[in-house]
Amino acid sequence: MIEMVPVGGVIGILGGGQLGRMLSVAASRLGLRCHIYDPSPNPPAGQVADIVTTAAWDDAAALRAFAESVDVITYEFENIPTAALDILEALRPVRPGRQALAVSQDRLTEKDFLRDLGLVTAPYRDVPDEAALQAALSEIGAPAILKTRRLGYDGKGQARIMAPEQGAEAFADMAGQDAILEGFVEFSCEISVIAARGVSGEVACYDPGENIHEDGILRRTTLPASVTPMQQMDAVLLAGKILNALEYVGVMGVELFVTKRGLVVNEIAPRVHNSGHWTQAGCAVDQFEQHIRAVAGWPLGNGARHADVVMENLIGADMARVPELAREADVQLHLYGKGEARAGRKMGHVNRIMRG
Amino acid sequence: MIEMVPVGGVIGILGGGQLGRMLSVAASRLGLRCHIYDPSPNPPAGQVADIVTTAAWDDAAALRAFAESVDVITYEFENIPTAALDILEALRPVRPGRQALAVSQDRLTEKDFLRDLGLVTAPYRDVPDEAALQAALSEIGAPAILKTRRLGYDGKGQARIMAPEQGAEAFADMAGQDAILEGFVEFSCEISVIAARGVSGEVACYDPGENIHEDGILRRTTLPASVTPMQQMDAVLLAGKILNALEYVGVMGVELFVTKRGLVVNEIAPRVHNSGHWTQAGCAVDQFEQHIRAVAGWPLGNGARHADVVMENLIGADMARVPELAREADVQLHLYGKGEARAGRKMGHVNRIMRG
Repeated sequence: MIEMVPVGGVIGILGGGQLGRMLSVAASRLGLRCHIYDPSPNPPAGQVADIVTTAAWDDAAALRAFAESVDVITYEFENIPTAALDILEALRPVRPGRQALAVSQDRLTEKDFLRDLGLVTAPYRDVPDEAALQAALSEIGAPAILKTRRLGYDGKGQARIMAPEQGAEAFADMAGQDAILEGFVEFSCEISVIAARGVSGEVACYDPGENIHEDGILRRTTLPASVTPMQQMDAVLLAGKILNALEYVGVMGVELFVTKRGLVVNEIAPRVHNSGHWTQAGCAVDQFEQHIRAVAGWPLGNGARHADVVMENLIGADMARVPELAREADVQLHLYGKGEARAGRKMGHVNRIMRG
Repeated sequence: MIEMVPVGGVIGILGGGQLGRMLSVAASRLGLRCHIYDPSPNPPAGQVADIVTTAAWDDAAALRAFAESVDVITYEFENIPTAALDILEALRPVRPGRQALAVSQDRLTEKDFLRDLGLVTAPYRDVPDEAALQAALSEIGAPAILKTRRLGYDGKGQARIMAPEQGAEAFADMAGQDAILEGFVEFSCEISVIAARGVSGEVACYDPGENIHEDGILRRTTLPASVTPMQQMDAVLLAGKILNALEYVGVMGVELFVTKRGLVVNEIAPRVHNSGHWTQAGCAVDQFEQHIRAVAGWPLGNGARHADVVMENLIGADMARVPELAREADVQLHLYGKGEARAGRKMGHVNRIMRG
């Protein structure tokens, strides 16, 4: 017997950025309210949420009051401190659960988990020290990429190593943070599958989108992706396998490389994902509502795609294009209500519906 | 030179019901914030708005503070007291403007305005007293319908008169409120056109939807309506004529009867309209975003319809159907976050996307 958060109930969301904002809007469509917890004042999600708590991740009293005011807790980013989770979990369900967070908070754990599931990842080695890095470089070869095990995103905390001689400097740049070395993967394209699993165990996947990155940041996602029906089905089955193994509840973003020898898992994110924003224009139920449905114990919605869509991120100075984009037919604007359009900052996105 | 409310700007919305709620969500997509003004505490729109003021319509200080905190003011219902408008208008643009409100706040003014534009309405007569009612009944004939000139909605403030003998009682029921008598119109169906006009004068119309009412409340709107291409074009031209004549800014709902002798205007509403909710599922830019774009001085968006949709209101006890509706494919749920599901209360709606 699965308990649905009733209409009028409250979803607690850790993190009040653009993902929290769009989750909050989606929850409102289901008659649910949102309570945002974020250490920064005036988070973008606060503009469309019922309640906002501004408090630090180590403020135990604030965390407890937050948990007690909500029916279920979810998050918009995976790097929630463990101590905060301990407090929250004791009071309310946190979805997706601890295992998904443990796996995705640490690149090494994630890669080990995927390998143990029988999935293919880039070659990788744990590099606790410089000697291990040199050994890893001789096994995997250069070029390779040194990544912190924790807390990296949008290309931050990463260093490309083009030749073994650059190892020492790259290792020093990690400043003592645990790191892994990843080999490069030759791929024809990168796709991502946005998958959802409900409390009852049902799994639903959106069509894979094809991603283009620039400067380590997602630039564009195109639907449909240029993959064969077989590759598409492989991608969907693989995503289902990951969600199932984690007894996952919620939406997950699974980034995959399409290679000559099959699909290689690049990364998983236990949350709604930038490469799933296209669902707002292409599906009856978008990834944000799907996530809210899942964590609230509601049945999953219909993610069948009814349109071809190109999602493009608006980053920093792209905001100058808004007046022109607002004029374009078949463009859905989504702006995040952020103050300053700093370089590299995700300010919004557009979903362009492609006809004929 | 038209001034656009900039990203980060604030839209003031008078009224915090479901229309204000969906307007607020739409504004958030454009990076705009909303400030809701409503006399009732905890209005549904407050759950997704940046700021909420709970104050009476005659609280001059609260109205002034509200106006000063926003860039432009709009509303979700047309019966804003005139004195409140005087205060607000002195400080910020109110859109749609005063003429649209004057016309739609009074059934007699509305009918006169439409007639003067050369449009056809139901036969009507001003009935300042009972003698006038009897004279009107003998001219228009029975059955007819006696309506208060002001403040009626969803079938309230109306009395059907089946025979002249019922005139006295019906008139007494109006309890001294100004009233008009309207004749019945024989029609094959009722349609409504949701039309928008921007600050620059551009006009855009959504496809007409076909409405079914039950107990005086809209039950269902179906797209496409069962009208000929010529009737559809007539409807669109007629709506454009109304908006243009009023130098209207915003979205308007125009209800029309389809009759053997052409289109008859039933009613206009200077706001987003229940019969336009289908646009959330059928168009790239829905009526709520279109309204925000218009009042914020942004270019109008693309309202071309890309799907067949049936919108159905969830009224009172219909809320018991939510778990089942949440399971249905191709159903978009929109719940309003209202507490008590009283009989006759609009609690939400579903947009059902019709395939094949």
